[in-house]
Amino acid sequence: MIIILKPNATAEQREAFTDALKSYYNVNVNTWEGVQSTVLGLIGDTSPIDIDFVNAQTIVESVRRVQEPYKKANRKFHPDNTVIEFANGVKIGDGSVQYMAGPCSVESQEQILEIAHKVKKAGATILRGGAFKPRTSPYAFQGLKAEGMEFLSAAKKETGLLIVTEITRVSHLPLFKDVDIIQVGARNMQNFELLKEIGKSKKPVLLKRGLASTIEEWLMSAEYIMSEGNDQIMLCERGIRTYESMTRNTMDISAIPIVKRLSHLPVIADPSHATGKSWLVEPMSMASVAAGADGLIIEVHNNPSKALSDGAQSLTPEQFGDVAAKVDSLKAALGRI
Amino acid sequence: MIIILKPNATAEQREAFTDALKSYYNVNVNTWEGVQSTVLGLIGDTSPIDIDFVNAQTIVESVRRVQEPYKKANRKFHPDNTVIEFANGVKIGDGSVQYMAGPCSVESQEQILEIAHKVKKAGATILRGGAFKPRTSPYAFQGLKAEGMEFLSAAKKETGLLIVTEITRVSHLPLFKDVDIIQVGARNMQNFELLKEIGKSKKPVLLKRGLASTIEEWLMSAEYIMSEGNDQIMLCERGIRTYESMTRNTMDISAIPIVKRLSHLPVIADPSHATGKSWLVEPMSMASVAAGADGLIIEVHNNPSKALSDGAQSLTPEQFGDVAAKVDSLKAALGRI
Amino acid sequence: MIIILKPNATAEQREAFTDALKSYYNVNVNTWEGVQSTVLGLIGDTSPIDIDFVNAQTIVESVRRVQEPYKKANRKFHPDNTVIEFANGVKIGDGSVQYMAGPCSVESQEQILEIAHKVKKAGATILRGGAFKPRTSPYAFQGLKAEGMEFLSAAKKETGLLIVTEITRVSHLPLFKDVDIIQVGARNMQNFELLKEIGKSKKPVLLKRGLASTIEEWLMSAEYIMSEGNDQIMLCERGIRTYESMTRNTMDISAIPIVKRLSHLPVIADPSHATGKSWLVEPMSMASVAAGADGLIIEVHNNPSKALSDGAQSLTPEQFGDVAAKVDSLKAALGRI
Amino acid sequence: MIIILKPNATAEQREAFTDALKSYYNVNVNTWEGVQSTVLGLIGDTSPIDIDFVNAQTIVESVRRVQEPYKKANRKFHPDNTVIEFANGVKIGDGSVQYMAGPCSVESQEQILEIAHKVKKAGATILRGGAFKPRTSPYAFQGLKAEGMEFLSAAKKETGLLIVTEITRVSHLPLFKDVDIIQVGARNMQNFELLKEIGKSKKPVLLKRGLASTIEEWLMSAEYIMSEGNDQIMLCERGIRTYESMTRNTMDISAIPIVKRLSHLPVIADPSHATGKSWLVEPMSMASVAAGADGLIIEVHNNPSKALSDGAQSLTPEQFGDVAAKVDSLKAALGRI
Repeated sequence: MIIILKPNATAEQREAFTDALKSYYNVNVNTWEGVQSTVLGLIGDTSPIDIDFVNAQTIVESVRRVQEPYKKANRKFHPDNTVIEFANGVKIGDGSVQYMAGPCSVESQEQILEIAHKVKKAGATILRGGAFKPRTSPYAFQGLKAEGMEFLSAAKKETGLLIVTEITRVSHLPLFKDVDIIQVGARNMQNFELLKEIGKSKKPVLLKRGLASTIEEWLMSAEYIMSEGNDQIMLCERGIRTYESMTRNTMDISAIPIVKRLSHLPVIADPSHATGKSWLVEPMSMASVAAGADGLIIEVHNNPSKALSDGAQSLTPEQFGDVAAKVDSLKAALGRI
Repeated sequence: MIIILKPNATAEQREAFTDALKSYYNVNVNTWEGVQSTVLGLIGDTSPIDIDFVNAQTIVESVRRVQEPYKKANRKFHPDNTVIEFANGVKIGDGSVQYMAGPCSVESQEQILEIAHKVKKAGATILRGGAFKPRTSPYAFQGLKAEGMEFLSAAKKETGLLIVTEITRVSHLPLFKDVDIIQVGARNMQNFELLKEIGKSKKPVLLKRGLASTIEEWLMSAEYIMSEGNDQIMLCERGIRTYESMTRNTMDISAIPIVKRLSHLPVIADPSHATGKSWLVEPMSMASVAAGADGLIIEVHNNPSKALSDGAQSLTPEQFGDVAAKVDSLKAALGRI
Repeated sequence: MIIILKPNATAEQREAFTDALKSYYNVNVNTWEGVQSTVLGLIGDTSPIDIDFVNAQTIVESVRRVQEPYKKANRKFHPDNTVIEFANGVKIGDGSVQYMAGPCSVESQEQILEIAHKVKKAGATILRGGAFKPRTSPYAFQGLKAEGMEFLSAAKKETGLLIVTEITRVSHLPLFKDVDIIQVGARNMQNFELLKEIGKSKKPVLLKRGLASTIEEWLMSAEYIMSEGNDQIMLCERGIRTYESMTRNTMDISAIPIVKRLSHLPVIADPSHATGKSWLVEPMSMASVAAGADGLIIEVHNNPSKALSDGAQSLTPEQFGDVAAKVDSLKAALGRI
Repeated sequence: MIIILKPNATAEQREAFTDALKSYYNVNVNTWEGVQSTVLGLIGDTSPIDIDFVNAQTIVESVRRVQEPYKKANRKFHPDNTVIEFANGVKIGDGSVQYMAGPCSVESQEQILEIAHKVKKAGATILRGGAFKPRTSPYAFQGLKAEGMEFLSAAKKETGLLIVTEITRVSHLPLFKDVDIIQVGARNMQNFELLKEIGKSKKPVLLKRGLASTIEEWLMSAEYIMSEGNDQIMLCERGIRTYESMTRNTMDISAIPIVKRLSHLPVIADPSHATGKSWLVEPMSMASVAAGADGLIIEVHNNPSKALSDGAQSLTPEQFGDVAAKVDSLKAALGRI
């Protein structure tokens, strides 16, 4: 951490501040005196230091981190890719491209079973489907809740697919026993209380990027989960909020190679929510895998125009099959598994 | 709701869709046939209708709400201002300008008592202070928690100030018995599970705007609380995320008159978090009140450069006194109480 | 165009407004009377109608375009891809993927010749290089200007590469005689006076997306050029401004398939300027082509750390060769030329 | 300027880089060697140094400006407010609040005369009106051009009001002889060729903030004009592009006190274009002046619903009179002239 002091800082102020830094945090402080200003260089683990605390000092002109504020999620301290392995042999992060597919909402036992069979046939290894749905309006369909969880379990038993579904509340955790991957939605990416509890659960987590989160904030949310002991995390790019209204969000494809460079965690791409338009799912799936994504999560509905939520972005199982086939040939060209 | 159908929609498709709308929702459907396209006009309460469901229909070209999707928060159905009254006679929303002031974090009993006395003397009627702090980093100071809540209660008892403090988790609600205003922070604005529980509590709520929320989403979050029976809500503008990096957020002053036109709920402005810079608190407080804010929430610390969080944006009690005096003369010129 | 009138609009007001629309513009007006409100449907060419004019009417509740406001750039009226052909046989928009490569700035005759030979060997068909450089600071290097143009011409003559370079001022047009593709930079995307003059020149144009332009505004800028008679336009995605600071801009990969669906014009991707980081050029090049781009424009410098501008995002000729080789195998897998 | 070198930089590399900096630019380089990394501190005028050049060096980890990159616009080197004085005694920047008012477009001699008389009576000292209109669509009304300039001159002669109007092209400059303030529109804020020519003209300039420009870029555009010798510049805040769609732009009120702190130049607020809604003009005018604006520019039309452009945001002369009266009482309370 580099701290630039104001030109008018006195030697006493500087000394008092330097002493405070050393006593609060486990760091050494190097002082470099220039003509115009004095610069302090902090050596040691600066990740617990609050930048706002430093900025608030009257003698501080500005401050800049040299180290990233995340440690457990940082590739520097963990050079090898994290590979998440499931009981049935599926792996995420090992160079393969996994397909997660299914409806936005679980609507009935028949619906989820039908879709599960079809997406499995088309190449999916993981079934997605929402039982607890966080919706902008209190008057919109909020999911089948506990009943939806049971339908998912039945589909898992019948097809052998792994299941991923979203959690919205700490007290629901016991309902997620049968779930293979707990999804934390974009609106809860900074629900730190939820992150901490999930961190205690040891179950793989799909951590969606917040609606308008920076990549660093997203990695810090992964760090929350990891700091409680759970390092089975996949980061999911699902678009960010911008001024452009042609798509629901702007999919930040560059976040895929950036996260893979800064962190050892796998990255999943969600072209369905990122764009909100079914006809963009294919080109954005291709782009995501070409940029290095470890998997795709795609909305598939047996009857998109009757979907109880988010139909506009859902593919039919047949369309999903076409996308999967195209991505398969791309994978081959890229030397991916 | 106006639905424009695709030019190639057949009469059968149109009829089937119209029947579906009537049977799912309590609406009448008017059909206007044009040369290029057919337009459906829905009459009745369209707020429960899911726009995504409509958009997903293969025969739908586009859809547009005429009604706002919020009802209880809507000024159309509740023309008079909501006025929130407290036991000690303080009112919010009655034309007065109330000052909420205090530190970002409660740090000790002495600290909060000293600040409470000083901000009261300077004109504040409500004491703010965080006990549960949602922080981006798991390694940063997370607040004194239950102990901090006790320090706040003691400050309330000793000074007679009302208290406002943030909740981060449903299970903490019992600790908020003595709190006068429950704050929902920006990161939890769409934590719908938390909103629903707070909606059952009947306690006044300060609902901060999300980091990158639209005004409509913010009003929908108020609607969540209101739909559970609690209509004692203040909306708090605290800046939105933009590309500009000179300030922590971009304070959307226009949100103040817009919310007051669309809704009957009071609006509080938070210039400290909106800008992140103490020297901007005065001009942005003035602007907020000139634009119609019902109150200000301002960070005040007895020793900003020793603050454990967010010191860079805190005022000293003396600076807060100056701001309050300037806003007082502005209030007089505006005919505010 | 669908215009929703306010419920309290009188029959006289409606008639006067309808008559005004018919007399100002060449349209017919259908009136659909509902219970709550009246809707006007405009039939005919509504592209010249000013939405603001309509919105300003006291009896208008809201207005919505059904047609896109661009005609010549619109795929609806021109279903086939525009293919731009050059004298040497190079084509853009025919399914091939063309590489434009070269330095941000032309720095000397030797520099541009050396780079030209190397990028040609690596597969580029078009040489890029700036002679007139629009820079944020008046004190930064502004390019070699007319001399730089001569160095480019010499490189063209010696290597047979086509050349693309940026124009910043109408009066410079005569200097562009030898240039094969005139680039309009992001900061000039809405310099309408420049667009109109370029529209008269018939030379192929590379139209960069503005720093924070919508896709529709970008297509409208293409329409400006086309409305003067020049339809040889390539649209260049170069990232948009968002809150994310990890990259210089956020590359909007989804803009590639969107533009190709809405318009018949070819799309070029600029991963160098979009990200500002040389190590992101490869993954973003791959993503762009996987999403359907007709070409790439990539900054290549023989000595990036001595580049007079934008070195941080430049590749060495060797690195460019590696990227081109990877994109070549991707092209093969995609069935591109 | 503080440059942090990579830990693996060799002594030779460091020396070569230090020598290059000294020879290219007129600076001294202080070297501070830390345990983890070496930091270079540059002393002298670093404003001509290209940050991208520095970042591109292979041995550079990161770089940070301590000085602002603008000099002539910088309050540090020019502590007193710039006051712009006109022949008729009107001053901008002296503590007064000036009103600029008039239609978006000049439409006829009668129209501009009628509005001029009415806004003068209501307190305006400067008449605004567009003759050359930069429009997103080539098919929209582009202004009366030279004829409109003549109508403005006639209105000036008849009423004694100063006139402000927009320039879109260098070659139009001779038509601006009679104009008192040349407006550079948001879309041309980084049309550097235009800025340079205007810098040679010595006429007062109203420089609008770009659609999505940072405050620093905006000041750099002022610097362009000043670097050619013209320091009669007013900066005009007109809203920035964000994701919020309730207003046309998000008015960045905080930019007003920020610019006034960083620079000595006056700041004008444009609530009409910033919001796009006439009913927001009053509260945003109040907020702008409360935050320190030196003037307001407001769209006024004698018949907003017949305006040929931007009617939705125009006030009638009577409404403008009401706003001016309210701002007048605010001015009095603030001790402004």
